[in-house]
Amino acid sequence: MTDGERSPAHRDDRAHVFHSWSAQRHLDPMVVTGAEGSWFWDEDGTRYLDFSSQMVNVNLGHQHPKVVEAIKAQADVLCMVAPGHANAARSELARLLAERAPGDLDRVLFTNGGAEATENATRMARLHTGRQKVLAAYRSYHGATAGSITLTGERRRWPSEPGIPGVVHFWGPYLYRSSFHATTEEEEGERALAHLRATVEAEGPEAVAAIVLETVVGTNGVLVPPDGYLAGVRALCDEHGILMVCDEVMAGFGRCGEWFAVDRWDVVPDLICFAKGVNSGYVPLGGVLIGDAVAATFADRAYPGGLTYSGHPLACAAGVASIQVFEEEGLIDAARRLGTDVLGPGLAEMADRHPAVGEVRGLAAFWAVELVRDRATREPLVPDGATGAAAAPMQELVAACRERGLVPFVAGNRIHVVPPLTTTREDAEEGLARLDDALAVADRHVGT
Amino acid sequence: MTDGERSPAHRDDRAHVFHSWSAQRHLDPMVVTGAEGSWFWDEDGTRYLDFSSQMVNVNLGHQHPKVVEAIKAQADVLCMVAPGHANAARSELARLLAERAPGDLDRVLFTNGGAEATENATRMARLHTGRQKVLAAYRSYHGATAGSITLTGERRRWPSEPGIPGVVHFWGPYLYRSSFHATTEEEEGERALAHLRATVEAEGPEAVAAIVLETVVGTNGVLVPPDGYLAGVRALCDEHGILMVCDEVMAGFGRCGEWFAVDRWDVVPDLICFAKGVNSGYVPLGGVLIGDAVAATFADRAYPGGLTYSGHPLACAAGVASIQVFEEEGLIDAARRLGTDVLGPGLAEMADRHPAVGEVRGLAAFWAVELVRDRATREPLVPDGATGAAAAPMQELVAACRERGLVPFVAGNRIHVVPPLTTTREDAEEGLARLDDALAVADRHVGT
Repeated sequence: MTDGERSPAHRDDRAHVFHSWSAQRHLDPMVVTGAEGSWFWDEDGTRYLDFSSQMVNVNLGHQHPKVVEAIKAQADVLCMVAPGHANAARSELARLLAERAPGDLDRVLFTNGGAEATENATRMARLHTGRQKVLAAYRSYHGATAGSITLTGERRRWPSEPGIPGVVHFWGPYLYRSSFHATTEEEEGERALAHLRATVEAEGPEAVAAIVLETVVGTNGVLVPPDGYLAGVRALCDEHGILMVCDEVMAGFGRCGEWFAVDRWDVVPDLICFAKGVNSGYVPLGGVLIGDAVAATFADRAYPGGLTYSGHPLACAAGVASIQVFEEEGLIDAARRLGTDVLGPGLAEMADRHPAVGEVRGLAAFWAVELVRDRATREPLVPDGATGAAAAPMQELVAACRERGLVPFVAGNRIHVVPPLTTTREDAEEGLARLDDALAVADRHVGT
Repeated sequence: MTDGERSPAHRDDRAHVFHSWSAQRHLDPMVVTGAEGSWFWDEDGTRYLDFSSQMVNVNLGHQHPKVVEAIKAQADVLCMVAPGHANAARSELARLLAERAPGDLDRVLFTNGGAEATENATRMARLHTGRQKVLAAYRSYHGATAGSITLTGERRRWPSEPGIPGVVHFWGPYLYRSSFHATTEEEEGERALAHLRATVEAEGPEAVAAIVLETVVGTNGVLVPPDGYLAGVRALCDEHGILMVCDEVMAGFGRCGEWFAVDRWDVVPDLICFAKGVNSGYVPLGGVLIGDAVAATFADRAYPGGLTYSGHPLACAAGVASIQVFEEEGLIDAARRLGTDVLGPGLAEMADRHPAVGEVRGLAAFWAVELVRDRATREPLVPDGATGAAAAPMQELVAACRERGLVPFVAGNRIHVVPPLTTTREDAEEGLARLDDALAVADRHVGT
């Protein structure tokens, strides 16, 4: 399209589509017309390397032929059936998930996405324990429905407050900006646990239904917990009869080089929330994996929650095919190697070269590049919640990436490098080179 | 399958699928293996006439070939794109909806389903007005996330309480069990409005952000508002700067013989929540239609809500095809005729024949048969929330329907007759005959 000549898709979008998390007036979205693997393209035919996996959900890459075929085959048979009936695609996906989930997490309540997963996990925890309070972390995102946004531990919560009663926030480990004045990962983990214990004790352990946390914090910074932290949370929960609820909406399904991120630390939560990578979002799907204790609570007592599309056949068929692709192509291992062989070392080198890079952290296909104005003070390149001129340095960087045909995931003062797990070494290196080039734009702000 | 020999689909369901709204231990779901039009069948090949439209959502009937083809065609091109980008399927559906929505409801925030629609409508209303309180009706269902379940005006809310702050419930019109001691529809409507006005005044009109109501109450009884009621709610809202939010998740898209149920009464709300019939649930989809005033609030101020699958291409492509099918096949009119020519008169005759039928009410493809033990006292066939032996009369009736190859929608002491809008006259009459036959089971409880 030439300037001034916009497509019907763009025109109708601007006239009729209300975009999430945005002021509507000045939006100028790219019209995406197609995609394949780690690439997508717009209506001008410009191709972009997808280092975002869209919303960190296209874990298998775009348009994986086996998942597309599974959707089409299921569409020919049965698109939708009420949750009260049974269906082969749903049954099979539930079994495949139960077989891969840790410990006794053998049952699945399917939802449409992650928000509904955390909503239902919270309800299950409260009814199972008969307790009201739920502890959730600052620097977390759990969804934008009333319950899930109340759990959320960042500024996106504020406009929706007051939220649901009984939610208390605690600080998790984040050594680069430690809440605990720690200087090593080990110390950060220990002090974060001590803080969590103190918070539980101050809130009344017998009043706490659940501790909800992202196994690896996603949008709020790719915060990988220090070894021992999750085991410590598990022990604290066990001590007080509190449920441990891990939100793996972003971290699960290979993103961390494991089926479930908790596997990396051999921790078994009581409930796991999932979505995104389960079927790469080809059809909306999420859910809660449920351990035996919670399941037993609802063996003879009706579970008071549900939704029209719980266990949607089309979504589940995409999930079944996705699990098969994960295994056939060895993508859990591939994700791990992408981190150890390409992204980890590549980003570490980049940090050396660019003064704007304060820290690089992550694992497998899940990395954050935290940008600063000053490595010593760690002043963020843009302040939290920046808008207008204050946000310009990050906007310039994002534009520089786009000009170079790269679309990363952007959050606050960070670039998240979160490509599909299927990304080839060549594409990953190409994307890193483009990011390397674009980062010069950020370096200009260092010391300003 | 013979007794004792269950399919893998059934076995895996029982081992691994956690069903909504249910105690899990004794479930024995039917394994649905296929469907077409108004019929679906199980793994034994037994065919059922679908008088439920599953969850009152398969408005176009099962497996409509044009919608299936649209899903497959979109699957070949692009399954998923982030909400921040634009996409032709999403843009087109937004335009098609805006063109059909009443008044200035020209913008759409897409969600995965109805619960998220009411969540977002509530947030929009609060931020637009700067007020906190939301009035919602008793005898309503708005979803099962924390916000939407708090709006919900029936017993499914209780286990999830305490809910979000600021929600107040009022009584809507329901002449058969009038809260207002009314004896005519007109009187019921007037008294319900007076009650609503008194409630608004008692809560503080300047504190009320929105009145949220189902245009025609769905699961809680197919309660068609008296003429003048919705216009009265609109006028009350206008008087106090309150937003009128109509939940048409079940009532929209032809179910009431209109694109949107409010069209029947020429009322334009500020926000309409939709889902289900928009694409017959072939892919999970819902949304909020947004009028100019609310849209203007978020022109320069970021809207603080969203979700990964907002405006999902596959879901929207199914929506575009659905709108086309509605028009090509004249299904809005067809739904109206189904009501006036077949379901309405047929159910009225049935009421005459069966002493267990207390009232038949509805319109178009949206009917309730309310069952009683005594027509004079109107004692329900089963009490609200009945379980165990108390629930047996309805369970027997449902079983009798199934034995006759009929699956209606069941709620409380009611059978809802809510077939696909595409149901032929012959199938509708066949279904009514099967229901007529089954109702003998209910008649046995009359006077007991």
